[in-house]
Amino acid sequence: MIKEITVAELNPERFIAENVADILTAVGDGRAINALSGGVDSSVVTMLGHRALGSRLRTVFVDNGIMREGEPERVAALFRDLGVPVEVVDARDEFFAALKGLTDPEEKREAITQTFYRQVFGRIVKESGARHLLQGTILTDVDETVAGIKRQHNVFAQLGIDPEKTFGYHILEPLLPLRKDGVRVVGRALNLPEEIFNRKPFPGPALSARVIGEVDPERIAVVRRATAVCERHLEKAPVFQYMAILHSDRVPGMRNGRRVYGRQIEVRCWNSLDARQATPTRLPWETLEAIAADLIRELPDVVSVTYNIAPKPPSTMEAV
Amino acid sequence: MIKEITVAELNPERFIAENVADILTAVGDGRAINALSGGVDSSVVTMLGHRALGSRLRTVFVDNGIMREGEPERVAALFRDLGVPVEVVDARDEFFAALKGLTDPEEKREAITQTFYRQVFGRIVKESGARHLLQGTILTDVDETVAGIKRQHNVFAQLGIDPEKTFGYHILEPLLPLRKDGVRVVGRALNLPEEIFNRKPFPGPALSARVIGEVDPERIAVVRRATAVCERHLEKAPVFQYMAILHSDRVPGMRNGRRVYGRQIEVRCWNSLDARQATPTRLPWETLEAIAADLIRELPDVVSVTYNIAPKPPSTMEAV
Repeated sequence: MIKEITVAELNPERFIAENVADILTAVGDGRAINALSGGVDSSVVTMLGHRALGSRLRTVFVDNGIMREGEPERVAALFRDLGVPVEVVDARDEFFAALKGLTDPEEKREAITQTFYRQVFGRIVKESGARHLLQGTILTDVDETVAGIKRQHNVFAQLGIDPEKTFGYHILEPLLPLRKDGVRVVGRALNLPEEIFNRKPFPGPALSARVIGEVDPERIAVVRRATAVCERHLEKAPVFQYMAILHSDRVPGMRNGRRVYGRQIEVRCWNSLDARQATPTRLPWETLEAIAADLIRELPDVVSVTYNIAPKPPSTMEAV
Repeated sequence: MIKEITVAELNPERFIAENVADILTAVGDGRAINALSGGVDSSVVTMLGHRALGSRLRTVFVDNGIMREGEPERVAALFRDLGVPVEVVDARDEFFAALKGLTDPEEKREAITQTFYRQVFGRIVKESGARHLLQGTILTDVDETVAGIKRQHNVFAQLGIDPEKTFGYHILEPLLPLRKDGVRVVGRALNLPEEIFNRKPFPGPALSARVIGEVDPERIAVVRRATAVCERHLEKAPVFQYMAILHSDRVPGMRNGRRVYGRQIEVRCWNSLDARQATPTRLPWETLEAIAADLIRELPDVVSVTYNIAPKPPSTMEAV
């Protein structure tokens, strides 16, 4: 049973000091490794590990091909500026090969998890000789995995997996008592830039969680472009998370006066404190119409754009 | 080439008098038949035919199983009150049999067209001995069929079909010079009740045009219920047309704390003058949220609701 630390209870400086000490105790004079995705959770864990271990922490950014435009370069540069070296590993082909032919959301998540842990990152960890792995699991991930709501990519104990036996390393999860709002408070106290500690969530399956049906480089390119359009309009909006989702259903439309079966992009924008419950943001109509117009103009195959109006629950944040 | 009569040019009394006379001239002392759907076009044609021919016009309402709740009874009662007898024919099984297994929108439209003209209505016309068929085709139907945008169910000449050779009857299409706005003006002048002459369009393929993927009685029941929810919230709204669309894509959601792959309903609500171009209505957020809440509450399998934010073009009004 994990004891939750709410934002009201959280003393970020003490949390940082205790966890830096705990990481140091656990790792001793050994080496640790962690995977940085650029999200707030893994960024905070990277900083905690860096404070505890310095160059004995190896931080890897795995480019799985389903990231946002320019993401690997951007994250690596940002942490380089903070004095934390990040190693970018190009594993795009491996991930797309594993996703080929899969349409079931759980199978897609599972393929990404397996490719990450058993193949790409597993291989890197083995070669590194590190015996400790730092992970950014938070309490909401555990809740949702236990409830069967969502299979998180980074919750092992709850799935009955012993990571030492399976992968040959110990897992350290300093953020387990926190929820997203608490992680942001710690991130700020760690002097992470606001674009990191206030970053909108963009979970592990990344763009593949925004493609209904089969994931391939072409469909990922469509949703990556759609995501960039949404970011242009919404990155300054005071919302919890937003996303563009590429549907599998085709809908009729007109291009140059001719009928086509085009694509539909669904936009979701959430108000939420901690991702457990969420409501659609009442965005200004001008913004919604500008997003739709840009998606249609910049993505020639898109003939239909929708905006989510259902809350979570019964919806989930992501669509896959 | 059809000469358009715009609303500005339209003299509804003269239009009615001329068309009643034309119908009478064409049919002579014979009999005519027409199919009434309850939409404004077929309702206006029914009234023109009734004025011209009285009891020599036979008006048939074909229940194809893909109509709104209570629609056959409602339309028949309404015209009975106007002194126009309407014969309701139950052809639900024939239509569902023809639609079975079809997912392509054009094949679905074609199956409905063929079942209607070659089977159900064709049989009724033959048995009736009528040699003239009155149809509510309007100019926009012709435009869209010619442009290849939409295969209308009621445009023959433009499709290269000779109805006399194919079906054994002449077609009279008095509304050909008009667009929807003109038809409404004529409907008012014919003393049709406002709920008819200002009725939101609900084209021939009806609920089957609001089901992406295969049409079966169960999926039609879902979208019929969703349509009733939308009507409850929007029937008084000053909009051109609205609809609920059942998607084929499944999306994850939560019901009673457990993950399910639920359904998504898309709501569209259009501002338009004549259906050639349309923009999504900027509905109040309270209305959108109330619609989403009711759809989720009344349709247990629905976990996601979206609202269309793309204009026509490149979208089309309907989704199939």
